[in-house]
Amino acid sequence: MSVLSDVLDLVFRRTMRVTVPAQATAAAMPRLIEDLLSSKGEITGVMTARHILDRYNVMTDAEKLQFFTHLAEDLDLDHADLETALHALKAKPDRKSYDRFLAAAEPRRQELARRLNRMPGATRLLVDMRADLLRLVPPDDPIARIDSDFRHLFASWFNRGFLVLRRISWESPAHILEKIIRYEAVHAITSWEDLRRRVEPEDRRCFAFFHPAMPDEPLIFVEVALTKGIASSVQSLLSDDRTPLAAHEADTAIFYSISNCQVGLAGISFGNSLIKQVVNDLTAELPGLSTFSTLSPMPLFSRWLLEQGFDASDWTKPQLLAAAAYYLTSARRNDGHHYDPVARFHLGNGALVHAVHAQADTSQRGKKDSLGVMTNYLYDLARLEQNHESFANQKQVAASPPVQTLTQSFQSVEVLQNA
Amino acid sequence: MSVLSDVLDLVFRRTMRVTVPAQATAAAMPRLIEDLLSSKGEITGVMTARHILDRYNVMTDAEKLQFFTHLAEDLDLDHADLETALHALKAKPDRKSYDRFLAAAEPRRQELARRLNRMPGATRLLVDMRADLLRLVPPDDPIARIDSDFRHLFASWFNRGFLVLRRISWESPAHILEKIIRYEAVHAITSWEDLRRRVEPEDRRCFAFFHPAMPDEPLIFVEVALTKGIASSVQSLLSDDRTPLAAHEADTAIFYSISNCQVGLAGISFGNSLIKQVVNDLTAELPGLSTFSTLSPMPLFSRWLLEQGFDASDWTKPQLLAAAAYYLTSARRNDGHHYDPVARFHLGNGALVHAVHAQADTSQRGKKDSLGVMTNYLYDLARLEQNHESFANQKQVAASPPVQTLTQSFQSVEVLQNA
Amino acid sequence: MSVLSDVLDLVFRRTMRVTVPAQATAAAMPRLIEDLLSSKGEITGVMTARHILDRYNVMTDAEKLQFFTHLAEDLDLDHADLETALHALKAKPDRKSYDRFLAAAEPRRQELARRLNRMPGATRLLVDMRADLLRLVPPDDPIARIDSDFRHLFASWFNRGFLVLRRISWESPAHILEKIIRYEAVHAITSWEDLRRRVEPEDRRCFAFFHPAMPDEPLIFVEVALTKGIASSVQSLLSDDRTPLAAHEADTAIFYSISNCQVGLAGISFGNSLIKQVVNDLTAELPGLSTFSTLSPMPLFSRWLLEQGFDASDWTKPQLLAAAAYYLTSARRNDGHHYDPVARFHLGNGALVHAVHAQADTSQRGKKDSLGVMTNYLYDLARLEQNHESFANQKQVAASPPVQTLTQSFQSVEVLQNA
Amino acid sequence: MSVLSDVLDLVFRRTMRVTVPAQATAAAMPRLIEDLLSSKGEITGVMTARHILDRYNVMTDAEKLQFFTHLAEDLDLDHADLETALHALKAKPDRKSYDRFLAAAEPRRQELARRLNRMPGATRLLVDMRADLLRLVPPDDPIARIDSDFRHLFASWFNRGFLVLRRISWESPAHILEKIIRYEAVHAITSWEDLRRRVEPEDRRCFAFFHPAMPDEPLIFVEVALTKGIASSVQSLLSDDRTPLAAHEADTAIFYSISNCQVGLAGISFGNSLIKQVVNDLTAELPGLSTFSTLSPMPLFSRWLLEQGFDASDWTKPQLLAAAAYYLTSARRNDGHHYDPVARFHLGNGALVHAVHAQADTSQRGKKDSLGVMTNYLYDLARLEQNHESFANQKQVAASPPVQTLTQSFQSVEVLQNA
Repeated sequence: MSVLSDVLDLVFRRTMRVTVPAQATAAAMPRLIEDLLSSKGEITGVMTARHILDRYNVMTDAEKLQFFTHLAEDLDLDHADLETALHALKAKPDRKSYDRFLAAAEPRRQELARRLNRMPGATRLLVDMRADLLRLVPPDDPIARIDSDFRHLFASWFNRGFLVLRRISWESPAHILEKIIRYEAVHAITSWEDLRRRVEPEDRRCFAFFHPAMPDEPLIFVEVALTKGIASSVQSLLSDDRTPLAAHEADTAIFYSISNCQVGLAGISFGNSLIKQVVNDLTAELPGLSTFSTLSPMPLFSRWLLEQGFDASDWTKPQLLAAAAYYLTSARRNDGHHYDPVARFHLGNGALVHAVHAQADTSQRGKKDSLGVMTNYLYDLARLEQNHESFANQKQVAASPPVQTLTQSFQSVEVLQNA
Repeated sequence: MSVLSDVLDLVFRRTMRVTVPAQATAAAMPRLIEDLLSSKGEITGVMTARHILDRYNVMTDAEKLQFFTHLAEDLDLDHADLETALHALKAKPDRKSYDRFLAAAEPRRQELARRLNRMPGATRLLVDMRADLLRLVPPDDPIARIDSDFRHLFASWFNRGFLVLRRISWESPAHILEKIIRYEAVHAITSWEDLRRRVEPEDRRCFAFFHPAMPDEPLIFVEVALTKGIASSVQSLLSDDRTPLAAHEADTAIFYSISNCQVGLAGISFGNSLIKQVVNDLTAELPGLSTFSTLSPMPLFSRWLLEQGFDASDWTKPQLLAAAAYYLTSARRNDGHHYDPVARFHLGNGALVHAVHAQADTSQRGKKDSLGVMTNYLYDLARLEQNHESFANQKQVAASPPVQTLTQSFQSVEVLQNA
Repeated sequence: MSVLSDVLDLVFRRTMRVTVPAQATAAAMPRLIEDLLSSKGEITGVMTARHILDRYNVMTDAEKLQFFTHLAEDLDLDHADLETALHALKAKPDRKSYDRFLAAAEPRRQELARRLNRMPGATRLLVDMRADLLRLVPPDDPIARIDSDFRHLFASWFNRGFLVLRRISWESPAHILEKIIRYEAVHAITSWEDLRRRVEPEDRRCFAFFHPAMPDEPLIFVEVALTKGIASSVQSLLSDDRTPLAAHEADTAIFYSISNCQVGLAGISFGNSLIKQVVNDLTAELPGLSTFSTLSPMPLFSRWLLEQGFDASDWTKPQLLAAAAYYLTSARRNDGHHYDPVARFHLGNGALVHAVHAQADTSQRGKKDSLGVMTNYLYDLARLEQNHESFANQKQVAASPPVQTLTQSFQSVEVLQNA
Repeated sequence: MSVLSDVLDLVFRRTMRVTVPAQATAAAMPRLIEDLLSSKGEITGVMTARHILDRYNVMTDAEKLQFFTHLAEDLDLDHADLETALHALKAKPDRKSYDRFLAAAEPRRQELARRLNRMPGATRLLVDMRADLLRLVPPDDPIARIDSDFRHLFASWFNRGFLVLRRISWESPAHILEKIIRYEAVHAITSWEDLRRRVEPEDRRCFAFFHPAMPDEPLIFVEVALTKGIASSVQSLLSDDRTPLAAHEADTAIFYSISNCQVGLAGISFGNSLIKQVVNDLTAELPGLSTFSTLSPMPLFSRWLLEQGFDASDWTKPQLLAAAAYYLTSARRNDGHHYDPVARFHLGNGALVHAVHAQADTSQRGKKDSLGVMTNYLYDLARLEQNHESFANQKQVAASPPVQTLTQSFQSVEVLQNA
């Protein structure tokens, strides 16, 4: 391969629109990677990075797997080297031996990712690369360990301090709104008119986190309804014939949908920060807001009922709600963690289970997953820390008195049933 | 210490402007740090981070030293734990043991820095914290090893892919221009009028890199003069009575000043990328540009002459230039690296020594450091890679034929003198 | 009516959200208008203006008519005063008598409009007010003379020098794109996907003029297709399964739709300036463009055929095209002006009739209005001025040789038919 | 002159940087003007406009005078035509005769200005043209009547509804700040540091009006100090060693300097609107503000004392203040208007004379013009309208009780003195 300087390359690309030939992709890859990691990378860095990413982009899944295998095996930690470095550090823990150890303790693939990222626009491609990895490699495959390197880097790059909160409104660019439609994971947005109902009225808000290096890609977004009192049905929130409330008359903010947008950022948590920031900004704008709550799905309720051997088909509404309350406060996985992922998220944030509602999500999905039941998690600012600590350390679930009562009524029934 | 939720805190700060009491700063610090690193940090993170950074900010140097010592000793690697993790990894290199090892191989102070950085505006404070470290702790002090952690993090955070190039002009905000005046390290800017002469005429350009999380702080900037032919004197470039050239008539871009702005980012290299990007952008805007050169100081020339036992006081101009050519092509430190830091930078980028000029910097500093001599380093795009490789691997310095001739004439003289 | 200062008013509005009662609207109007035009208007101006415009906004059509009548009759020129002023001016044409005459020669309703316009956001409301006037008052009604005052003011306010050209793309705000969909007057945009096909591909462009005081309202927009060669069918331009052309490969820009957006700006011509500006900007961006053409409807072709007594139902395609060529080059209204409004616009701009195409607009409207025929008007930059002068002064229509030949073939037939 | 289309021209200018030859400027001007006003102007408008303005720009003062004479005499009203049109209108006041009259009642030079203004950037040049006119032509010269046409147009173009308020801060672009330094007309800004003291601290504000077509040119600006209580000395406001007040602790906003920036906009009043808008915005941002006052110069106080035959050289401070109070409340010009221009402005806005201070402006200019005395005009929102009406209709000056007492004490003395 003839390698010009990347300066020259950039100039040529602009004026001549040369594109890199994609043939012989997988074969030449190790050589390109070595170039980028070597001294040459100082000068030809951005161009070599582009070659690698251009080629990666046209690979088949099989070739990608080969690429990941190369990262896992040929750019791995050197155990012997590590052992030497660790012994030297223990013997004499000065700066030199510390630096030597740090260098040995980081696999070269991390430096590769950092050098690839020097190319403008590369951050997005690296996030997509990790999405490929998660899709192609099972978590227990030895190769999957390179995912730990991605996570490590992304946790640094996507640090909360680097994220930007932007309001999404009817005045936002269409190519962003289009992605909101596409990425909505809780209550599907069926059309541009449906989207408009969620972002244009003055009692509806939507906020998203963005990273400056991926300005066209929302990372996570939340949809908020400003209401009087805590809403108990999502269909009423999303109906198309309601009269909007004047924003300053609202006393409650309902977070009714939170969606992660990037598969390649799985496990890099933004939701916690997003909710805090939005609570903070809304409070500053609308001093009349005093209650912050969610209207949330219970995505595994039906599955749990099934696993427990319950048949809810002829339950009354009170029975259903009692079971839901019990599920939210008491259902556990085998590893001791809460059964419900949405509950884990909000209870982990310090929220409490405030209420349960039947017939609250009458969509097909809502009926299937949770028999139409939805939950309000309440963010009581004065109790967040205490709730969080109890949940994190003793796995205690905070709940309002009515939910506690419901839970107990279900336990009585359950005892009876099982007796 | 009574810790409220940071949500509450943020709200209160806005409305009541509570400020954190700074008393008892050093004492409470380990406790606050532990809070931030523990489960509590999930909920109270941003507020705890602010407490820590607010307190750090009012510390005396002695207290800061105590703080750094805490980071170095109490948040260090656990060697025993590391050894166990490494053994497990060697025995069974699966994902679990890999993750276990990665966790053990990173000192907790790195996670601390990441959590501190979640606070809006913290990045700037952490960069300043490293500047304190470099000022207070000698590089061979064992505590100085925590600088390696800062460098490691900053190399990720300030990756080229995250930097933004902005043109600095007379239409830039005053608070940015003020920093350009303050940070200029090569040819001091003496007044706003002097600044204006460097950024307003159409044949003068200035570009800087910024990081999105520090939008008011340039990281590095370069000043460029567009000329016909390669300039040989900086005073003529900066004179206040010249007639500007129409930009499209220029054939040459002279990089006559490059200044790093942030002490706390020492060793995180941006200059290479900045020059490449500016060459690229200027070429796209002004197709008539064909030559990219510097007009650079030789900051250690006088010192080198002194060390070599030369007395240049009665040298003729040709003798002086011959010595300068020799210095640029041949002077080495004991460790084998080039003697001159500016030469190291440009030769390392693949430039060549194009010419030397006497009486080229008649400022007091110019006369003292280099007897008024300046250098043109030429960026010949077609030869960058080859020059870089020869310099990096064989320490060969590329030079134009006239500079080679000058060098040889000095060597003859030198042999004679020493004979 | 108790009138507070508008300062107070603005403050109150923000904090208390007082709204103006709309009752008794028409009755109090003359009094409010007098306040605004009097000395009081100096202090209470913006508030009084808002009162007037708020009240106008809730009027019935009958009340609006009453309002217009008031403007026409009570804020009219004073003929006696004018005569005196004119005599004084003729007697002694100094500055004082000139000022006196200028004041007398402007009806007070013009000053009223200027004072109303001091309120932020009023420009849009005044444009809508004129739309009401055009809707409610026939042009030959004496009251319609106040439309001349609106036109006079709007021609100043919407001067080309104040307009801003913005590109409309898929990254434009949704509330602007929504208006593009609504205002498209030539080839209806049927959905957001249809819109996207017109603004997102790199060989499709859309540009609009905006006024800084109405930033959310396009005034006029043009849709452009970049092609190789001159397109002959609009359905092929708008099809949803085509492969976009790389923009730099295009040699031709086809202006296939121009729509005025504001009824209230009727007669204030922007189209001429818009086309010039877009030609200019496209040429600067894409030097490969050498041909600028339209693909235009012939909205009155069917009507003209009917009026002439032609029955085209069994015409061959050559016969149809010959008739179209004749219509474009030769059809005149009774007042001597060209029969076709689109032809008047483009020929008045100096374009020439380049070609006619059958089956070029197969939409229902296209078939009904023009039997599916469309025209290319060519903007040949070297001939614009000469074409314009000939058309403006001698009503000569410039046409390409093929169109001239077609025209003659139709004339022969016509003579034959009529013989 | 060979005239290409302006489209072509614009394209050429960009790519070839053709500039218009300036020779034979004055001679060809009437021909160019006629081209622009004729049918040709439809096509070649922007280019012809640029020719005219480029040529005007290089004219000598004598040539400019010739140009103005041409506008005054050759593009004037046609009195005979006007008389005919007026008779027709009186005879039959329909729309046609009304339009005919409006056309006749506007001199062609107004349409000329509107067509010149179609060129991007022309607005600024036309404002400068009027500045030339005011400089070169005495107000009683017959040619000066064309200034009435400029005023008429500018009053429309610079309507309050089109102006944009921008805060001027230390983050504003340097080329704007430079103009603030240059245009400050009340208390000279002596350096960039002096400027910084007025715009950077949180208790100092500066606001300016801009027009969208002249985005780099402030039209008028006001400097504001946020204080506790009403300030009595400008030197204390501008001192360089004071400690800033937290903005939210201020109860008073002092407007201590208002400067018009554009000579060519003389007589187009913005100050009234600027103060209202700033009061409004500050109140919204800082609810703690309850008092809005000025600290104003009395520029003609010394002159008035001289004219009255007073010798203040051995007056005590109480005597000086009594005279100042009398001057502010009672001094009149021969035409009955208030003697002091600053008083006319603020009293006309509805403010009242709140206090007078000795030693309040110790600059050379302050001592010379007003013996160091300054005034607070108070903007009491609840009384603005009443004050304005009394001043406008009955020339009554509103003053605080202390100022009234001072005035009476001076009158007693005066009577005594004159007795």
